Amino acid sequence: MTHSIDKLIIRPEGTLEILSLQEAEQLSTTSDNGLHELVRQCALAVLSTGAETDETLELLDAHRDFDIEVTVRGRGVQIILTNPPQTALVDGDLMAGIKHHLFAVLRDLVYTRNDILLSKRFDLSSSEGITNAVFHILRNARMLIPNRLPNITVCWGGHSISREEYEYSKYTGYELGLRGLDVCTGCGPGVMKGPMKGAGVGHHKQRISDGRFIGLTEPGIIAAEPPNPVVTELCILPDIEKRLEAFLRLGHGIIIFPGGVGTLEEILYLISILQHPDNRHIALPVILTGPASAEDWFEEVFRFLDTTLGLHGRAHLNYIPDNPIEVAREMRLAMETVRQDRRNSSDAYYFNWRLHIEPELQRPFEPTHENMAALKLSRDLPTHLLAAELRKAFSGIVAGNVKAPWMQEIRKKGPYQIKGDPAILKALDRLLRHIIKSGRMKIGGEYTPCYEIVSE
Amino acid sequence: MTHSIDKLIIRPEGTLEILSLQEAEQLSTTSDNGLHELVRQCALAVLSTGAETDETLELLDAHRDFDIEVTVRGRGVQIILTNPPQTALVDGDLMAGIKHHLFAVLRDLVYTRNDILLSKRFDLSSSEGITNAVFHILRNARMLIPNRLPNITVCWGGHSISREEYEYSKYTGYELGLRGLDVCTGCGPGVMKGPMKGAGVGHHKQRISDGRFIGLTEPGIIAAEPPNPVVTELCILPDIEKRLEAFLRLGHGIIIFPGGVGTLEEILYLISILQHPDNRHIALPVILTGPASAEDWFEEVFRFLDTTLGLHGRAHLNYIPDNPIEVAREMRLAMETVRQDRRNSSDAYYFNWRLHIEPELQRPFEPTHENMAALKLSRDLPTHLLAAELRKAFSGIVAGNVKAPWMQEIRKKGPYQIKGDPAILKALDRLLRHIIKSGRMKIGGEYTPCYEIVSE
Amino acid sequence: MTHSIDKLIIRPEGTLEILSLQEAEQLSTTSDNGLHELVRQCALAVLSTGAETDETLELLDAHRDFDIEVTVRGRGVQIILTNPPQTALVDGDLMAGIKHHLFAVLRDLVYTRNDILLSKRFDLSSSEGITNAVFHILRNARMLIPNRLPNITVCWGGHSISREEYEYSKYTGYELGLRGLDVCTGCGPGVMKGPMKGAGVGHHKQRISDGRFIGLTEPGIIAAEPPNPVVTELCILPDIEKRLEAFLRLGHGIIIFPGGVGTLEEILYLISILQHPDNRHIALPVILTGPASAEDWFEEVFRFLDTTLGLHGRAHLNYIPDNPIEVAREMRLAMETVRQDRRNSSDAYYFNWRLHIEPELQRPFEPTHENMAALKLSRDLPTHLLAAELRKAFSGIVAGNVKAPWMQEIRKKGPYQIKGDPAILKALDRLLRHIIKSGRMKIGGEYTPCYEIVSE
Amino acid sequence: MTHSIDKLIIRPEGTLEILSLQEAEQLSTTSDNGLHELVRQCALAVLSTGAETDETLELLDAHRDFDIEVTVRGRGVQIILTNPPQTALVDGDLMAGIKHHLFAVLRDLVYTRNDILLSKRFDLSSSEGITNAVFHILRNARMLIPNRLPNITVCWGGHSISREEYEYSKYTGYELGLRGLDVCTGCGPGVMKGPMKGAGVGHHKQRISDGRFIGLTEPGIIAAEPPNPVVTELCILPDIEKRLEAFLRLGHGIIIFPGGVGTLEEILYLISILQHPDNRHIALPVILTGPASAEDWFEEVFRFLDTTLGLHGRAHLNYIPDNPIEVAREMRLAMETVRQDRRNSSDAYYFNWRLHIEPELQRPFEPTHENMAALKLSRDLPTHLLAAELRKAFSGIVAGNVKAPWMQEIRKKGPYQIKGDPAILKALDRLLRHIIKSGRMKIGGEYTPCYEIVSE
Repeated sequence: MTHSIDKLIIRPEGTLEILSLQEAEQLSTTSDNGLHELVRQCALAVLSTGAETDETLELLDAHRDFDIEVTVRGRGVQIILTNPPQTALVDGDLMAGIKHHLFAVLRDLVYTRNDILLSKRFDLSSSEGITNAVFHILRNARMLIPNRLPNITVCWGGHSISREEYEYSKYTGYELGLRGLDVCTGCGPGVMKGPMKGAGVGHHKQRISDGRFIGLTEPGIIAAEPPNPVVTELCILPDIEKRLEAFLRLGHGIIIFPGGVGTLEEILYLISILQHPDNRHIALPVILTGPASAEDWFEEVFRFLDTTLGLHGRAHLNYIPDNPIEVAREMRLAMETVRQDRRNSSDAYYFNWRLHIEPELQRPFEPTHENMAALKLSRDLPTHLLAAELRKAFSGIVAGNVKAPWMQEIRKKGPYQIKGDPAILKALDRLLRHIIKSGRMKIGGEYTPCYEIVSE
Repeated sequence: MTHSIDKLIIRPEGTLEILSLQEAEQLSTTSDNGLHELVRQCALAVLSTGAETDETLELLDAHRDFDIEVTVRGRGVQIILTNPPQTALVDGDLMAGIKHHLFAVLRDLVYTRNDILLSKRFDLSSSEGITNAVFHILRNARMLIPNRLPNITVCWGGHSISREEYEYSKYTGYELGLRGLDVCTGCGPGVMKGPMKGAGVGHHKQRISDGRFIGLTEPGIIAAEPPNPVVTELCILPDIEKRLEAFLRLGHGIIIFPGGVGTLEEILYLISILQHPDNRHIALPVILTGPASAEDWFEEVFRFLDTTLGLHGRAHLNYIPDNPIEVAREMRLAMETVRQDRRNSSDAYYFNWRLHIEPELQRPFEPTHENMAALKLSRDLPTHLLAAELRKAFSGIVAGNVKAPWMQEIRKKGPYQIKGDPAILKALDRLLRHIIKSGRMKIGGEYTPCYEIVSE
Repeated sequence: MTHSIDKLIIRPEGTLEILSLQEAEQLSTTSDNGLHELVRQCALAVLSTGAETDETLELLDAHRDFDIEVTVRGRGVQIILTNPPQTALVDGDLMAGIKHHLFAVLRDLVYTRNDILLSKRFDLSSSEGITNAVFHILRNARMLIPNRLPNITVCWGGHSISREEYEYSKYTGYELGLRGLDVCTGCGPGVMKGPMKGAGVGHHKQRISDGRFIGLTEPGIIAAEPPNPVVTELCILPDIEKRLEAFLRLGHGIIIFPGGVGTLEEILYLISILQHPDNRHIALPVILTGPASAEDWFEEVFRFLDTTLGLHGRAHLNYIPDNPIEVAREMRLAMETVRQDRRNSSDAYYFNWRLHIEPELQRPFEPTHENMAALKLSRDLPTHLLAAELRKAFSGIVAGNVKAPWMQEIRKKGPYQIKGDPAILKALDRLLRHIIKSGRMKIGGEYTPCYEIVSE
Repeated sequence: MTHSIDKLIIRPEGTLEILSLQEAEQLSTTSDNGLHELVRQCALAVLSTGAETDETLELLDAHRDFDIEVTVRGRGVQIILTNPPQTALVDGDLMAGIKHHLFAVLRDLVYTRNDILLSKRFDLSSSEGITNAVFHILRNARMLIPNRLPNITVCWGGHSISREEYEYSKYTGYELGLRGLDVCTGCGPGVMKGPMKGAGVGHHKQRISDGRFIGLTEPGIIAAEPPNPVVTELCILPDIEKRLEAFLRLGHGIIIFPGGVGTLEEILYLISILQHPDNRHIALPVILTGPASAEDWFEEVFRFLDTTLGLHGRAHLNYIPDNPIEVAREMRLAMETVRQDRRNSSDAYYFNWRLHIEPELQRPFEPTHENMAALKLSRDLPTHLLAAELRKAFSGIVAGNVKAPWMQEIRKKGPYQIKGDPAILKALDRLLRHIIKSGRMKIGGEYTPCYEIVSE
């Protein structure tokens, strides 16, 4: 009796974003500025919320007949969806949450295009320029809310994890929620969903009605990791580097659960920042945690970090195995330290301006075969720079695994060639094998590596 | 590292109920009006939220050292809890939701005592008097909210159900929530929790932030069915008859899931009302539903109703097997009918004044051994009166199963003796055996019947 | 073109009070419990908001054809107004604020009748009983709001004042509002309106949107002093003694502007409490203030207090002439002292339980000719008791001036005879002459005294 | 005892606008982009709220030692005010409303500079480009609120009016407020304040808590007409043309009270639009009104319009003399027509996209002596173009009267020379004389004309 709906007209209302005629024109199909295909992909991802897949191409393939059109009728702006996924609808209407996400997509893609990339206001080759751009994107998405005490807990970890790890991340989120903490994640499935789901229950038990569930994503990955339905605030940053910076500028503390190469990218990004001398006195609590069954994963990661970055590599990473209550308590206490630190330095609570991030970590890394082959994986580099270089290696592998253009590159040119210091390569190889073996590379199916470790 | 906390002092704050000195004195230990023991039991139940048990005595036994004291310090009112269940606490503080429930208990017990029972304002032997009393209790609990369109869905069914039935009730609640419907239940575990939990997720997806999760309970049963944590509005009615009336006056539609003797009590109560000639033209949608696996339960119930109440007994009960989406859609549509009906008759949306309820269904039925033996189970009675009589039989069995004073009576005097028309007794016996066999009498353990079917 | 509307049907909605059928019946015309005439008078007063008169009988006379009926249609409760004052309507609808006040009247009259006077719960001959009754009336009117810091400023003073004094009270209210203070008054015109009006502007400038404008009145006086339209929270206490107690239990600080005999009643009530040994250590800031032109009024009052109560009579009364900014600053600072005091004594912010009020001040004083003649105006009494006695003298004069039944008594039996200690009588006579001469007895017209000072 | 405060540090908080480091740098003194002086003047105007003057230079002169600095401390943004007007402070703190206005100034000046003028996104020589720019400025100021029914009443009229006219505008605003209408004005004194003040009282009486009081101004005039304190939403448009367009795109109906040359500018702007054939079928209610005493003003204006624009010039201008209730009722009814019209044409409620505005009315008119001398005041033009031309004449006189740079031009070069069709010039001369004579040119003092009517 559910007839599939093939045309759906949506008008902006309520708290939804409002578009100008100019913006509507930019977004409409006829224009050839390339924005339309980006909008189509991101919109499809948002409409596929809850889909358990990490295959961008698969999703796009399955919905080749989907389209989104932004039109102007009687001067009013309308969105027309053709063949939307039926899971997004209730009795023929789009769910309100998905509608919000859809308009967030339009808002961010248009803003980034006009105000960040085309406007020339921001010098995107300089560190300050990039940081200002991240601030403006987040502000435009209304994510910078003054007068809230520090409580945003960024949760990082894999999208492809075991049931046990998922439950653990949910339980941890629950304990965070009971203690009034908000959650910010990459907004897809797995560890990006578990802590939000748990925190929602915790907030409800504490009658917290203004809890925040922030999802930060990027056009290149959103289709592989559609925003989960718990997310109430969604922002699409233009690339992984600005997305990682947004996590650190917006969040007040970080929890890392087990994951795959994406999680390693995050850990190395974080280490590169924590190891930088300028950041020594800035409060930024980091906790690593997982269920007992994940202990071997952490062991492998620590072994890798010790081998490659040496003694100090793991400094400031606080490992609390198998104890969600303890994790939540520590994070709650640490938030007070963050508050004091911000207050003492007259820094805002809603944006961590002081944190120094190297341009090396800010400038978009293009994982071309050339760039991947040219990585400087050498122990002669200072710790924070080697960490930055290793970050790129993992970033490239993520791209090769799930980002459409790079997947196509690899189909064409074969796997990336990763070269460097033999000890580092050996450690890297061991870690990657462990990740594959433990099924953390992808959800379901056999994994074919997109890289080769090339010891010369 | 979690030291158990043995004294906890709570001050009323925020949206909590405010007590006067006079009320505080009534609630304090030293007074011998019996209110204190009632408060202790209800408070313990509320603090045990989430406990999966249906054994009142077990709960009370397990927490013999628990106490609650209402004191006056510097003229301010304080609650002191001794040995509260540790599950109610987060880092030494009571969860906000439990705090709300605790103050709801105090509010309702004091109000019922002073304004309903002792005040002589309400003629509790008359139908009008009882209905007015129910109105006043609900109004005092702030449950009568004007200017909301009819959308309260009462969900009835068992507390001891299979995992599959629980999931089914949750899924149904989810579909209700997606369609903007609120949920009202008896507020314990099982079917009293599933639809609320599901509706919460549905509301979140539709960005509904003022959804209502109403729990109606009674002092005699609260310890056997502690309020689940989803409940946001809790009210304690003095007895099962006023509680059942509250469901029908407050709710706009009813869904019945599989259950045990309590559910049968509810079904017969409902039939007695629906069959009354005066109620023929009042919109009151009723839907029975369950997963495919519960079909045999519904078959047994329908067979029982057909045998005892005859052809028309099941009129107005709409059975929709195994289809949560259909159930939710039907209820959503029916709400519009209710709205029209109320509007046409100038009746309020927040209280169904017009429904006629027989005094027979309103006056508290005391399940003494004498009263149980004296039930008039005869097919000579008009349908609505026989249904009312059968309602009492099931009500008595519920009491004998889980309500402390009656359990003690049965330990003393042996099981109830149920007599009557042989055909009715036979049908009753068959149904009760089915309920026992399918594990719906109690959660866990062997069931020893508290009754005997006595065919003369 | 404005046709006068002679029948208006109102249904309770929105945030309005909800009545039960039982209550609707109590309020309907046919019942002979006397409540109806009370309701009619109070409703008329509320509908005459803004009328500048102090003549109860005049108002009632002018609207002899006004009636209010509470009916039950289709079981829904409706209010029918016959010949309502046209000033209460906008295009045929009652203004929302007036509708609120109207339902507040019904709520309070019904509650006081049922729960205070008839219920026997409160021993109204004891001090504790009366205080509990006041608490319950205020709580039922939702005036006790937890979690707000002390900021309720009670403003007392005359309803018949000069334009200059009115402007001064408004300016003072403005400065209070700029400092975040709420205002509570007797809710009529003059000083009961000025500070509210000013505070509203101050709140707006500080973007305070939840400011409170509390009006406390009584059935006997409401027709003489119809609630002004600034009042957002209205409560009708049963008599002047409970009303005065409500001011002190609810308010956190008091400002006294110039006035007539009512203001003298308030000053003496306050002195009687401040002078009581038990209240010595309770923070209760009191400021007397007025424009330069009112200096002679204060001089006369101080002379009277010094003569009758002696040296300490004026202790704790802080006089700040002609300086609204200073008054507001002092009150703002004093609120912090009150907060500390309440916190130190674990007392609630929303109700001043600790303040000791003598039964003499709590029990309704009936200004019969006998009682007025029997006042003990002797300097042999302790200060706080003599103040209480003098309070009664002024209370009687207020009643004789504006309360309908006592005005009729005086028409019948002639003026009250006031006797006592000659020095006191002389001071009293002088003060009363000053009040008459300065036009503070009544709004407009010649004043005929309702009393005689009888020196034996 | 009030020590004057000479340095005040403000940190953005609450609902205040958040600045990025980049923006803070733009606003800081050291940069030489000219923004600082603009900020200083606008900030001073906002801090002088309530000042009754229309002399830009006077205000700036009186506060030559005032300065505003935007600094960055510990990376947090701070505003430092030097020698702020003491009237803006309460006990050393800036009033919240003024703080909001101050941050609105910074927000709009920065946004206009970066996103409108420098970004090249908008083709400001085209009609579409200008309209899109106006939309973006208003959206950035959060003035476009979806899901509100049409109710914004734009009130135009003079800043220098008689007490009677002020009271009349206030009374009209009161009747508008009683009927739930919001008010939008040019945000200064006189008619820009009266209707807001009245509407505030009306809203309060109807318990409307989300009423909107919108002020639209421009940098060139804000110092002459500081925002009045009733304004809750302030937006600074870059020039008079965009400001006028914002009134028409944002508002739903227009009321015109008596005024001076600015009001004539507004009337002619409006006529030019109403007369345009493309706008014939768009609902845009316009009412002219004033007290009986203003009748001669309206007569003079009508005579002028009839003489210059001919028979149809006054079409669509509905004149309702001396009847605030009738005005408010008509506007309330007209709002329903606007709603239908928008709905039928699928147009948004929050922005009137359909209205056609000629580029002639959109492009900034620079009142240089050359441009003023070159006005085409000829009856050969179509009505809507002649109205546009006359609009410029009045616009120039306003500039010459109160806008600082043009006042200086006139000091230098003498009065503007206005030429054209003798009949038009004669009518213009007569009208201007009437305006001068009736004291509507300026507040206080003798008026020296900034123009000369040159009949060749």
